[in-house]
Amino acid sequence: MTLRRSRSAAPKFKHKAVDEFELINRYFVRANEARGVITGIGDDGAVLQPDAGRELITVIDTLVEGTHFPGQIAADDLGYRVVAVNLSDIAAMGGRPRWMTLALTMPSSDTAWIEQFADGLYAAADEHDVALVGGDTTRGESTVVTVQITGDVAEGGAIHRSGAKVGDTIFVTGTVGDAAAGLELLSAGKPDDYLSSRFVRPIARVSFGQALVGTAHAAIDISDGLLADLQKLLTTSGVGAEIDIGQIPISEPLRSSFDIDAQRRFALSGGDDYELCFTAADDALPDSGAVRVTAIGRITAGASIVCRDHGAIVEYADSGYRHFQ
Amino acid sequence: MTLRRSRSAAPKFKHKAVDEFELINRYFVRANEARGVITGIGDDGAVLQPDAGRELITVIDTLVEGTHFPGQIAADDLGYRVVAVNLSDIAAMGGRPRWMTLALTMPSSDTAWIEQFADGLYAAADEHDVALVGGDTTRGESTVVTVQITGDVAEGGAIHRSGAKVGDTIFVTGTVGDAAAGLELLSAGKPDDYLSSRFVRPIARVSFGQALVGTAHAAIDISDGLLADLQKLLTTSGVGAEIDIGQIPISEPLRSSFDIDAQRRFALSGGDDYELCFTAADDALPDSGAVRVTAIGRITAGASIVCRDHGAIVEYADSGYRHFQ
Repeated sequence: MTLRRSRSAAPKFKHKAVDEFELINRYFVRANEARGVITGIGDDGAVLQPDAGRELITVIDTLVEGTHFPGQIAADDLGYRVVAVNLSDIAAMGGRPRWMTLALTMPSSDTAWIEQFADGLYAAADEHDVALVGGDTTRGESTVVTVQITGDVAEGGAIHRSGAKVGDTIFVTGTVGDAAAGLELLSAGKPDDYLSSRFVRPIARVSFGQALVGTAHAAIDISDGLLADLQKLLTTSGVGAEIDIGQIPISEPLRSSFDIDAQRRFALSGGDDYELCFTAADDALPDSGAVRVTAIGRITAGASIVCRDHGAIVEYADSGYRHFQ
Repeated sequence: MTLRRSRSAAPKFKHKAVDEFELINRYFVRANEARGVITGIGDDGAVLQPDAGRELITVIDTLVEGTHFPGQIAADDLGYRVVAVNLSDIAAMGGRPRWMTLALTMPSSDTAWIEQFADGLYAAADEHDVALVGGDTTRGESTVVTVQITGDVAEGGAIHRSGAKVGDTIFVTGTVGDAAAGLELLSAGKPDDYLSSRFVRPIARVSFGQALVGTAHAAIDISDGLLADLQKLLTTSGVGAEIDIGQIPISEPLRSSFDIDAQRRFALSGGDDYELCFTAADDALPDSGAVRVTAIGRITAGASIVCRDHGAIVEYADSGYRHFQ
């Protein structure tokens, strides 16, 4: 663990003006208000106090320049996004996020970039009282950012991908397709305020995920595309699904910027939305507060996804995001 | 968390022969014997059961191709090493390692490389009953490997850098300088069996670190070099040190391969040894078993490190490893 608060200060130890430890001191070490942090940044490891009667949930996700985000993304948006995509995995398990570690690889020690990155990172973390407790900054050819988050959940409370039951209603939060459309516009140099912000600053459904504990039978977050992620849930649960294409929630900005075919392509296969897709008994939904929740289909005894449009079966080839192809 | 066991298997979802999920299936998912793993790889996150009355220790460390290891390192050695450097941080806190997550970025899906990497990763993990519970594989320009390990320790038992007391004896495990000498030989295309193996397969002092709980006042692992890491411990503790250069443990292979100046340069500033440097009352040492433990000096009321050679004060400029210089 090298996100260290200490640095060699003795006269014998001569450093150039800015070294790794100073960088970290300046931008990443902030007041740690989160509960359960006994020792944060500055030792070989962080020491954390778990709450009695809670299980831990741990997730890790990496964003690579050129693969997961365009090089021209603002540093604070990248910092926000890398935390949000991990929070989304915690949310999909019904967990409460608590502690975060960071591994940041970058070509040079651009202090303005690091300061901005840290601002975005903390913006996302502070929304959910997540403490940065350690990390490692390294030099590499291109920017690679890994965030790991540990959360917790009541014993036996975690929501799994494997619990979907035949007859369950399939729900999705928010709207889908916005982020993929936003990325396309961003990459083309024609960013749209709303759609592009849905890509760079995704909203992790953390509170609603916790509210689903005890109600949702299965959940997954939409990172690779609605069809691809739903299929993972179905495969793990050993069930199938029937989806009504017309019910899939599509935002007004997506409707007004793209034709119906593009809307559906983004919504079904686009990915990066970080909304939750979950299954539950139809009448069992918790109060979703300000979160829009839409029923889009139901779990069947099949093995795959049947899409219907006004009752007729339609075919959609999967183009969900895959690495290494 | 995308180290997923599930993959889309429905006929509609056509993948090429090897995609990310298959790769992971094949090489990273192994039987999970470790205690406390309720849900491992294959869901949005891992669900883990902490033991009552234990605090958690979490560490994260990254190895970047070209920065931390030469491109020609064997994949299994890299896998072993990235786990070992994290285990070493857990050891320096007195912790018991339990659960590991992996973020692997690489230029292509070279299955032979991944299989070999996984073998090395598990070799290090299996030595200490650490379970791989999740991770993320991504494509990037060069290889970047991040491992995060969560361990535990009795409440209040963690050994910190901050506890060194004036009058403490300073100890170091094993021998120092070997890894830096080994890396130099490796990079020059003249690997030495013993010295190079000390770089590529460092031994994390996990059991001995746990035995130091309640005895050591302060500890740190030697990753950046003995002087540089000791200075971090001193600064955090607000004390100084006097070191007897002649007492520093140097291996026979290092002695026979390099002259005395090079030996001392490697031993004092070389880094990468992953031995423990710790302070304790002189007569309080636990049984170190097969681990060599050497007293090299004592904690003083100063602020920096005074090195003596046969009684005379000698000057050593710090050249401990720093990123971003």
